[in-house]
Amino acid sequence: KCDLTGLWKNDLGSVMHVSMVSEDGNFFGEYHTAVSSAEKPIEISPLVGSQHLDEDGQCTFGFTVNWKFSDSTAVFVGQCFAEDGKEEALQTSWLLREKVDSLSSDWKATR
Amino acid sequence: KCDLTGLWKNDLGSVMHVSMVSEDGNFFGEYHTAVSSAEKPIEISPLVGSQHLDEDGQCTFGFTVNWKFSDSTAVFVGQCFAEDGKEEALQTSWLLREKVDSLSSDWKATR
Amino acid sequence: KCDLTGLWKNDLGSVMHVSMVSEDGNFFGEYHTAVSSAEKPIEISPLVGSQHLDEDGQCTFGFTVNWKFSDSTAVFVGQCFAEDGKEEALQTSWLLREKVDSLSSDWKATR
Amino acid sequence: KCDLTGLWKNDLGSVMHVSMVSEDGNFFGEYHTAVSSAEKPIEISPLVGSQHLDEDGQCTFGFTVNWKFSDSTAVFVGQCFAEDGKEEALQTSWLLREKVDSLSSDWKATR
Repeated sequence: KCDLTGLWKNDLGSVMHVSMVSEDGNFFGEYHTAVSSAEKPIEISPLVGSQHLDEDGQCTFGFTVNWKFSDSTAVFVGQCFAEDGKEEALQTSWLLREKVDSLSSDWKATR
Repeated sequence: KCDLTGLWKNDLGSVMHVSMVSEDGNFFGEYHTAVSSAEKPIEISPLVGSQHLDEDGQCTFGFTVNWKFSDSTAVFVGQCFAEDGKEEALQTSWLLREKVDSLSSDWKATR
Repeated sequence: KCDLTGLWKNDLGSVMHVSMVSEDGNFFGEYHTAVSSAEKPIEISPLVGSQHLDEDGQCTFGFTVNWKFSDSTAVFVGQCFAEDGKEEALQTSWLLREKVDSLSSDWKATR
Repeated sequence: KCDLTGLWKNDLGSVMHVSMVSEDGNFFGEYHTAVSSAEKPIEISPLVGSQHLDEDGQCTFGFTVNWKFSDSTAVFVGQCFAEDGKEEALQTSWLLREKVDSLSSDWKATR
C-alpha cells in the first residue's frame, strides 16, 4: 500500500521528504531540487499537499513547492504505483510558475 | 496587494474559497468545480496550498484539490495580478491526474 | 463548416495565415507571433500542419511553427468550433521547445 | 549531426518513420503508436512536421500526427541530442487533442 511518508528521489536527483500524512490526506514536507532555472543558489523548500486514501493504495496525490530562493512556485501531481514484487514508485507531472511583471507576459510564465 | 483569502470565481464558473493565509504562506480552502469528467455528482472538495509573500504583492501560488467524488487530484499554479485601477485577478494553469490501473496507462493519466 | 484556410488572429494579437488545405488535410502557412521570449526581433515564420476532415466540420488540427528568429520550435493543437450563429473559432493549446545545450537541461526546455 | 530521417522508437514502443527532410526542414512520415485512448483499433497514421537545421545539429523540431482511427490530433515537439560517443536521441513532449462536442467541454479536450 502506498504511503507517501518518507524520502523519495527522482531521476534528476531531486529529493523529497514527506512527514506524516494526516487522516484527511494532507501532508507537509521539504523538497530539495537538483535542478533550477533561478540565479540564486538552491535551498531546501517547504511543500504542502494532499493525497487520496483509496483502499487499493494506488493513490493519486498533489503538492505545492514554495521555492525559498526564487519568486516561483511549482506544483506536482501524480500517482503511487505499488505493483506486486516491485518497489513503490511515484509517477508525477509538474508545472513551474515563474513570476512575471505584468499580464502581458503571462503567456510565458509557466513551463 | 494580493491576498488570496476570500472567494474567487473563474471563467468556467468554478468557485474557490480560501480561508486565512498563514504567516508562512500556507492556506486551506474549498473548491467547487463547475466542470467534471467524473461520473459521480460534483461535490465541494478541500484544497491545500501555498503562496509567496513578496513585497510587491504580485505573488505566485499553488494548490492541490483532493476531489471527494473521484479518485483524481488536481493541482493549480498561478500568479496574482494587482494592476493599478483594476481588480485583483488570478492567472492559473492546472493539471488533472486521473487514477489509472497500471503503469502502462500512465501516459494518458494527466491532462 | 470549419475550413482553416485564411487569416486567424488570437487574443494576444498573433496572426496566422493558412494557405489552401490539401485533400489529405495537410496545410502550409505563416505565423506572425505578437509575443516572443527570444532576444532577436520577431520574424514571420513558416508553419506546416494537418487537420481532420470530419463531416461535421468541427475538426481537430495541429501545426508546427519553425521560428526563423530563434532555435526554437512551437507546436499548436486545437479544434475548430462552428456553433450556430457564431463566427468560427479556434481553441488551441501549445508547447514551445527552446533549444538547450545538453540533456541535463532538458527538464526546462519546454513551456 | 542529427538527421530525423529514418526510424525512431520510443519507450512505450511507438515507432515513427520520417522520410527525407527537405531543404527548408519540412518532413513527412508515419507514426505507429503503441498506445491509444480510442475505441477503434490502432492504425498507422501520417505525420507532417518541421525541424531546425542548425549548424551544431542539436536541432529542435515539431510534428503533427493526424490519427486515422479517431477524430483526434497529436502534436510533438522536441530536440535531437547527439552527444559524443552516444547514439542520437530524441527528447519530446506531446499534446493530444480529442474532439469534443462543444466549447463547454473544451477544458478537458487536451492531455
